[in-house]
Amino acid sequence: MARRRVSQLITSLSSPSRFPIARCLSAFSSPDLPREFTPKSWQSNPQCKSSINKAFSFQQHSFSSKTKRNPSYSFLNSDDISYFKSVLEEKCVVQDEERLSVANTDWLRKYIGTSQLLLLPKNTDEVSKILSYCNSRQLAVVPQGGNTGLVGGSVPVYDEVVISLANMDKIISLDKVNGILTCEAGCVLENLNSFLENEGFIMPLDLGAKGSCQIGGNVSTNAGGLRFVRYGSLHGNVLGLEVVLANGTVLDMLGTLRKDNTGYDLKHLFIGSEGSLGIVTKVSILTPAKLPSVNVALLACNDYLSCQKLLVAAKRGLGEILSAFEFMDSHAINLALTHLEGVTNPLPQSASKFYVLIETTGSDEANDKAKLEAFLLRTLEEGVILDGAIAQDISQASIFWRIREGIAEASIKEGACYKYDLSLPVEKLYGIVEEMRLRLDKMAKVIGYGHLGDGNLHLNIMTPEYTDNILTKIEPFVYEWTSAQRGSISAEHGLGFMKADKIHYSKSSEAVKLMGSFKKMLDPKLILNPYKVLPQSILN
Amino acid sequence: MARRRVSQLITSLSSPSRFPIARCLSAFSSPDLPREFTPKSWQSNPQCKSSINKAFSFQQHSFSSKTKRNPSYSFLNSDDISYFKSVLEEKCVVQDEERLSVANTDWLRKYIGTSQLLLLPKNTDEVSKILSYCNSRQLAVVPQGGNTGLVGGSVPVYDEVVISLANMDKIISLDKVNGILTCEAGCVLENLNSFLENEGFIMPLDLGAKGSCQIGGNVSTNAGGLRFVRYGSLHGNVLGLEVVLANGTVLDMLGTLRKDNTGYDLKHLFIGSEGSLGIVTKVSILTPAKLPSVNVALLACNDYLSCQKLLVAAKRGLGEILSAFEFMDSHAINLALTHLEGVTNPLPQSASKFYVLIETTGSDEANDKAKLEAFLLRTLEEGVILDGAIAQDISQASIFWRIREGIAEASIKEGACYKYDLSLPVEKLYGIVEEMRLRLDKMAKVIGYGHLGDGNLHLNIMTPEYTDNILTKIEPFVYEWTSAQRGSISAEHGLGFMKADKIHYSKSSEAVKLMGSFKKMLDPKLILNPYKVLPQSILN
Repeated sequence: MARRRVSQLITSLSSPSRFPIARCLSAFSSPDLPREFTPKSWQSNPQCKSSINKAFSFQQHSFSSKTKRNPSYSFLNSDDISYFKSVLEEKCVVQDEERLSVANTDWLRKYIGTSQLLLLPKNTDEVSKILSYCNSRQLAVVPQGGNTGLVGGSVPVYDEVVISLANMDKIISLDKVNGILTCEAGCVLENLNSFLENEGFIMPLDLGAKGSCQIGGNVSTNAGGLRFVRYGSLHGNVLGLEVVLANGTVLDMLGTLRKDNTGYDLKHLFIGSEGSLGIVTKVSILTPAKLPSVNVALLACNDYLSCQKLLVAAKRGLGEILSAFEFMDSHAINLALTHLEGVTNPLPQSASKFYVLIETTGSDEANDKAKLEAFLLRTLEEGVILDGAIAQDISQASIFWRIREGIAEASIKEGACYKYDLSLPVEKLYGIVEEMRLRLDKMAKVIGYGHLGDGNLHLNIMTPEYTDNILTKIEPFVYEWTSAQRGSISAEHGLGFMKADKIHYSKSSEAVKLMGSFKKMLDPKLILNPYKVLPQSILN
Repeated sequence: MARRRVSQLITSLSSPSRFPIARCLSAFSSPDLPREFTPKSWQSNPQCKSSINKAFSFQQHSFSSKTKRNPSYSFLNSDDISYFKSVLEEKCVVQDEERLSVANTDWLRKYIGTSQLLLLPKNTDEVSKILSYCNSRQLAVVPQGGNTGLVGGSVPVYDEVVISLANMDKIISLDKVNGILTCEAGCVLENLNSFLENEGFIMPLDLGAKGSCQIGGNVSTNAGGLRFVRYGSLHGNVLGLEVVLANGTVLDMLGTLRKDNTGYDLKHLFIGSEGSLGIVTKVSILTPAKLPSVNVALLACNDYLSCQKLLVAAKRGLGEILSAFEFMDSHAINLALTHLEGVTNPLPQSASKFYVLIETTGSDEANDKAKLEAFLLRTLEEGVILDGAIAQDISQASIFWRIREGIAEASIKEGACYKYDLSLPVEKLYGIVEEMRLRLDKMAKVIGYGHLGDGNLHLNIMTPEYTDNILTKIEPFVYEWTSAQRGSISAEHGLGFMKADKIHYSKSSEAVKLMGSFKKMLDPKLILNPYKVLPQSILN
């Protein structure tokens, strides 16, 4: 049996139709959100709209009256508008209802604020003047990038002034020797990547939202994504930041050096602080060389232990060319195969419990191909994988990625879907899926998939509709379970408004207290992105 | 001419005597300090001792009365000793003169404190009790790891109590799936690496001081080193920390997750803060898989522009297997060839102005070798390199590394040596060497070498003896020049006591002010590692 599979793989490997698939991959690179879920296409997709509206009405029920407007904040008046018009171009002081409606609404339409003012500064000096004024008036503000977040972090909760960075989208410089890019915070991720590709580099991060999300928002939320397993976190890749503090002070930390041990490395405090400590206005970032050879394989494993063994083997055997290691259980892949159009199973003979998508990216087509093929034959012979296929052309590569990336889209086509983005020790990661399946039994369909190479699980629980009964069976159990494993209740999405009061599941009380002290020191009037990230109780 | 060189390289490449040289490299891995310069061997080397004593007497002249003992600090009394003996084992409360002398003296014997007490806690609780007590008494302390720093950061300036982490050297866990190591701060780097190698992993950093330095000190100083170009900085690799704050609070940030976006990522503030914000007691760190194939090549370039082109080409052509890219000018290599025993030029036909050492580390011997050879032939044909050789056996590899690593040792054999560790944009990096050569003319010999892949230059200026006349020609010029390029006056060594008041050359006044605010918030009585990192003036 094993022999037959080996020969089968050898046959598929020996096909001569190798081709460069980098561009194809780039078009299918959403880690956990389908690419077509941009606000625009979303509005024209009745099925999606219906599913999400269902979520929305329920979530509104859950989140309403969760927090009260801080009475210390001023209300916007006509003098404020006059001041902003004296500082910004008139067209950058927006009171138009339609545009305000967009700025007030988050990407999933789950959180909708009531801001009466959208400001679009064109440079750091304007951001500084806005914040200095808002601070003196104690007018609360929300910094907004591409507004693609999933935890309600980028829209007002009440009437906070929205400060959009969209007009600050200039590329400042590229050091072509070291691949160090410096740009303004409002640059769209995809635009930066396109610019870099022409120069022989790529951005070290790639997200499904790349067509809308901005680098300032990526930095402020410490965005993860697909290339994380290869290039690591933004804490390793961001070399410098310019940040405007709540009182308008411009904090220049815009170094472009790989090494700099002069004093405390302050920029890290702003990476991932979700705009609550300052507004990122400029970024310098290390960008890897664009490598020409990309290969994608879809593999079948019999159990979760084999997935782990495959991960260890891939880190050894593929090591330096491994660029993605995504896993999905059979429930997840079947969901995708059921609901996505034009997608078929590349391994039709398999009825395996787990599937792993491996991508390699390297500098040498022939060597990389040989390395991947040898690795797959070895793991097949050792019984770590049961079956597998390497994409031989652009459509195969697209299908492999489409299956993995389409799971999120497919998951909301069955009714209600409870989504959790957890970080867990890899050895224990699948345990929560199994426990949840036992716990909910026939009440729900439970699927597990995600970035196994980073220990990041996407746990989705699907039921016909949202009910309090189901929710109380899921929460706080899922958070408590995660906490007991020293996991994170937000691997890559942040806390935003949605999970601000759940931070204690992942952080010690001393750490949360210290975060509160930093917040109060840097933003004593609490004007920056209020009600988010930290529990309000520690800021009183 | 070029053709001949190509054939010459082909001949050397075609030799069949390939062998695994990883262990050899590991034994020659000091980035800028000769391995034999451990305190012990140093004492038995009269030539070194004489050179360094020369430096010492001069530096004493320069640094004396630079700062005054802070009169707010208490003086140690017998009650204090009694308290520490009630908390620690008696043998861990050290008043023995000889042992105190070692703890009071830095590795270069440049800074010598007068502490009367060395404490050796065995666990976090003991560290907490010590700090809580010292804070209440306002007794200043110096955390000490392997005491291998080069900027006077790890020894007392006056009578600060030395808290050594040497007794906290337990490995706590290793997640073998993801390669996540958790250990106590006092673990010696080399011991950790040996432990990991047996498990198929390596530490993501490697330093000349690895036989003595401790991981807690590495983290506290954000140590760089040889593997930086491949695995990046500790900000990217450290996943979690346990830190004891000045008041004894134990701050548990000891996550072992690759992704965790729950609140501010506080640990980064402690990475590189040189023990002035808290004492690191435990570390969790991501460790890369140990890869079996290592190759080393020494290449000759005609000018600095070619070195840059080679770097760009190596990042593209070798990309994922590149593990070191070190450069040295002809003055530097000649110095090594003159002063180091048993070292000959592997490229005897060359009289090039620049040399580059390239190391690759990968998972596949045959593929990696083919990739490196193809790359070298290509760059040779393009005229980027003039000549080159790949190490064919362990002694060749040793010689290649010995030349690069022996420069620091050789540089102090000519008399006085002024050393600067600068981070600069790669394009401008060699400019300071050329300017300094013009500026000093016949007064001094100026050499430039370092980690070109990281933009890290080691500028060494050698004169027959130290004089104020020479120093005033070098400083503040070297700092001003670096500052004008937005470079860093300390790429990897930190500021310590030596450069605490020079931080403004690399950091903005707002940033330095904010650092001061953090220091005062976390350590209001300023007991942690006083007189270091930040200018005293901002703490008043």
